[in-house]
Amino acid sequence: MNPISYDTNDPVVALASPWGESAVAVLRASGKGSLSLLAGCFSRPEALASAASHTLVHGILRNPQTGEAVDEIVCAVYRDGRGYTGEEAVEIFAHGSMPGIQLILETLRSRGFRDARPGEFTLRAFLNGRMDLTRAEAVREIISSRSRAAHGMALHRLEGSIFRRIDTFKSDIRKLLAAVEIQLDYPEDEVPSAELIRKDDIIRVKKELETLASTFSIGRLYQEGARVALSGRTNAGKSSLFNLFVKEDRSIVSDLHGTTRDFVHEQLSIRGIPVTLYDTAGLREAETGDAVEREGIRRSGLVTREADLILYLVDGSIGLQSGEIEGIDPQESILLWNKADIAGQKAPEGFLPISAVTGEGFTPLEEEICRRLSGTEPAADEAVIDSVRQRDLLLQGSAALTQVLAGVEEGMPLDAVAVDLRDALDALGEITGEVTSADVLEDMFSRFCVGK
Amino acid sequence: MNPISYDTNDPVVALASPWGESAVAVLRASGKGSLSLLAGCFSRPEALASAASHTLVHGILRNPQTGEAVDEIVCAVYRDGRGYTGEEAVEIFAHGSMPGIQLILETLRSRGFRDARPGEFTLRAFLNGRMDLTRAEAVREIISSRSRAAHGMALHRLEGSIFRRIDTFKSDIRKLLAAVEIQLDYPEDEVPSAELIRKDDIIRVKKELETLASTFSIGRLYQEGARVALSGRTNAGKSSLFNLFVKEDRSIVSDLHGTTRDFVHEQLSIRGIPVTLYDTAGLREAETGDAVEREGIRRSGLVTREADLILYLVDGSIGLQSGEIEGIDPQESILLWNKADIAGQKAPEGFLPISAVTGEGFTPLEEEICRRLSGTEPAADEAVIDSVRQRDLLLQGSAALTQVLAGVEEGMPLDAVAVDLRDALDALGEITGEVTSADVLEDMFSRFCVGK
Repeated sequence: MNPISYDTNDPVVALASPWGESAVAVLRASGKGSLSLLAGCFSRPEALASAASHTLVHGILRNPQTGEAVDEIVCAVYRDGRGYTGEEAVEIFAHGSMPGIQLILETLRSRGFRDARPGEFTLRAFLNGRMDLTRAEAVREIISSRSRAAHGMALHRLEGSIFRRIDTFKSDIRKLLAAVEIQLDYPEDEVPSAELIRKDDIIRVKKELETLASTFSIGRLYQEGARVALSGRTNAGKSSLFNLFVKEDRSIVSDLHGTTRDFVHEQLSIRGIPVTLYDTAGLREAETGDAVEREGIRRSGLVTREADLILYLVDGSIGLQSGEIEGIDPQESILLWNKADIAGQKAPEGFLPISAVTGEGFTPLEEEICRRLSGTEPAADEAVIDSVRQRDLLLQGSAALTQVLAGVEEGMPLDAVAVDLRDALDALGEITGEVTSADVLEDMFSRFCVGK
Repeated sequence: MNPISYDTNDPVVALASPWGESAVAVLRASGKGSLSLLAGCFSRPEALASAASHTLVHGILRNPQTGEAVDEIVCAVYRDGRGYTGEEAVEIFAHGSMPGIQLILETLRSRGFRDARPGEFTLRAFLNGRMDLTRAEAVREIISSRSRAAHGMALHRLEGSIFRRIDTFKSDIRKLLAAVEIQLDYPEDEVPSAELIRKDDIIRVKKELETLASTFSIGRLYQEGARVALSGRTNAGKSSLFNLFVKEDRSIVSDLHGTTRDFVHEQLSIRGIPVTLYDTAGLREAETGDAVEREGIRRSGLVTREADLILYLVDGSIGLQSGEIEGIDPQESILLWNKADIAGQKAPEGFLPISAVTGEGFTPLEEEICRRLSGTEPAADEAVIDSVRQRDLLLQGSAALTQVLAGVEEGMPLDAVAVDLRDALDALGEITGEVTSADVLEDMFSRFCVGK
C-alpha cells in the first residue's frame, strides 16, 4: 500500500549527476518495466533483456521514432528488486553533454518514463524496506555535507548508528510495556504500577533520549556550519588574518576545481566545522567612493550582526584605543591582540595574542573558535543527529516517559500508563519510519535533490 | 611504445562527473593493477578480485590505514582491456558529496593511483587502439556541444563518419600510388605518369578533400555558436523581441536546472545554432544614473562591434527617422521593421516586417538568421568536421594532390609523383592518428576535460 499522494510504482527517470559538462553523466531509471521500456530505444534490446542483475551492457540509445542515435551509453542493470530503490532499475552512463542529457531524458520520457520527484529513489528504497528513515535522511545529509566531519557523521548514520540506538530504546520501553500489558490481561491480580515499572529504568531511558536529542546542535553545526566575521579598525590586520585562514585550510571544498575566490568571504573548515569567514575589511575596501564606502560600512554592520562569532582584532603594536571595544559583546566575540610579534605591550586580560604575519597563536585561536562554536569536538564514533524531525520525536518520546513517570508516582491506573508507554514507542517508531504518515514522507523527501 | 612524455601505464584516477552536490558522483580509475589497488581499501576485496568483467560490486571504501569508512560505493569492473581505455579499469559510483569525493580521491592516491591528466582516459583508448583520432576528438566535441545539432554532428563523428570518409580517400590515393610503385619496380618499361594516373581521379579526390575541409565553418558555427545583438533606438522593441526569442526556444540548455536568467544576454538555439543573444537595451537600461548610462552605451557599442550579426530594429509605427540606419553595414545586419502589426507604413525595401508582440514574421526571421550565419542547414547525416587540426590536414592533403597534378601535367619523374602521393596519404593518416607525433597528441588531449 502506498501512503504517498503520487504513484510510486511508475517507471521514473532523473539525472543523478550534477548538471554540467563532464566526462560522464549518470541517469537513473527505476520501476517495474524499466528494462523493457529502455530496450525499446536501445541498439541491443536482446542483450539488455537477457542481462543478469549487476552487469553492464554497452550500446546506442536511439530515438525510437526516427532510429537516430541519441548517445553511446553503458547500462547498469539491476533486476529482481536489487536496485537502490528495491525495484528493477537501470543506471545509464552517458557522455556529460548538456544537449545530450536533455535528448536522453526526452527519449526516455517518450518511452513512458516520468521525471522522478526529488528524493523519489530514496523514498522508494524506504517504501520497499531497503532502508529505515534515519538511513534515508543520512543519504541526504551525506550529499549536502560541507565538511569531512559532517560527512563522517552522516556516513555513521547511513551505517545505522541512529537506527541501532533507537532500536535499543524501543526494546527497553517494550519490556516495560510487556510487563504492564500482561498485568492488564489478568486484571484480577491488582498490582500497583510502581511494582511493575522501576522508576530508575524510565529515568535512564528518558535521559538517553534527551542526550541523543541534544547532539542535534552539534550535528547541525557540523552540517550547516557557522558564520564567523573578522572585525576591528582599519589596519588592525583583518585581511592578513583572513588570508592566513585561507592558507592554513587544507580542505577547502571549493578548491578542487579552482572555484574563483571571493575576497569578501570564504568557505573554510575549522577543525571540521564548516565556517563562512567574512572579512569586513573586504567589504569596506572593495570599492572606493563616498557612497560606496558608506554602503560598505552598512554591509559590514549587517555581517557582524548576523555572525555566530566575531573575531575582533586590536592592533597590539598601537595598543587599545580609548573606547575601542565598547559595545563588543564578549559572549559573541573573541578578542585578538594582533601583531603580537611586534607589540611592545603584552596582550591584556581576555585577549588572545596572535600574529597574522608569523602565524603565532593560530592553533590556540582555532581551538578557541571550535570551543566557542561547539562546546566540545564530538568523538569520531558518537551517534550525532542532524534532523529537526528526529530531535523533536526524541523529545516527544521523552515527554511521554515523563508522563509515565508521573503516572507511576501518582499511582495512576495501569491502562493509562500503558497509553503513555505506547506514545513513547510511537514517537520512536516514527523516527525509523515504522509509524509514519504520507505528509511526513512527502515533506521529508521533497528536501532531497532530484536523482536521489 | 609510448610516444607521450608522461607514463600512460600508471594506474590513474579522476572525478568523471561534474564537481558539485548530487545524487551520484562517478570516479574513473584505469591502468594495470587498478583492481588490486582498489581491493586494498575495499570492504569486499575477494568479491572485487573474483568479479567478472562488466559486473557491479557493492561495498564500503575504507581508509586503508585507519579502517574508517570513506563511502558506500558501487564498482563497475572492466577486465582484460575491456574498459573505455582498453585497459583494466574500474568506475566508482559514490555519493555526490563534495567532502566525500575529496576523501575518495585521497584514499585512492594513498593506494598508488595518480591523478589522471585531462583527456588521459581517451588518450589511452587511442594508444590502445580502441578508437582513431577523429573519434577521440568527437568525444570531446560531444561533451562540449552547446546545441542538439552540434551534439548530433559530433555523435556521427564518434560513430566514424569522418573516419570512413578519410579511409575512402586513403584507399583512392593508395590505388594511384600502387600503380606508380609497380611501375617504379620495373623501371625498364617507361610509362609516362599521365598514362598511369588519370588527372580526373586526382581532381575528384582533391575536390572531396576540400569539400570536407569546408564543412569546418559549419561545424565550428554549430559547436561554438554565434553572437547576435539586438540594436535600435529606445522603444524600437528590442526587449520584446529578446523575450520572444527566449520564449520560443524550447531547448535552452541552461533551463533544465533553473539557471538564473541574465536579462542582458541569453543562450539560445536558433535552428540548432547555439546563439548568444545580446539585448543592448538590457545593457543600457539595466541601471540608472548618468555615469552608468554612459557606461551602458559604451558596452552596447562593444557588443554590437563584436557581434557576428546585428538585428537592427526600426519602430515601424513611427517610421524610419532621418539618418537612423546610416553607418549600419547591411552585410552584418538584418534590418527589421518592428511593430508591423500596428505600422501604418509597409516595410521598406530591405526590411523584414515583424511584430515582437504578435510573433508575426518570427519564422522568416529565424530562417534569415540561420541563412546569414551558416549559408545552408547541413543535412542530418552529412559528415561535418569541427577541428582546426582536421581541416588543416585535409588542406595539406589537397595541396599535396595539387603537386601530384602538376607533376603529372609537367611529366615529372614517377618517383617525384610518388613522394607527393605519399605526402597526401601521410596528411590523411595524421587525421586518423596512424601517423602522429607526441606533441600533437599532448596538445590535442590537453584540451579535454579531466576524467575523460
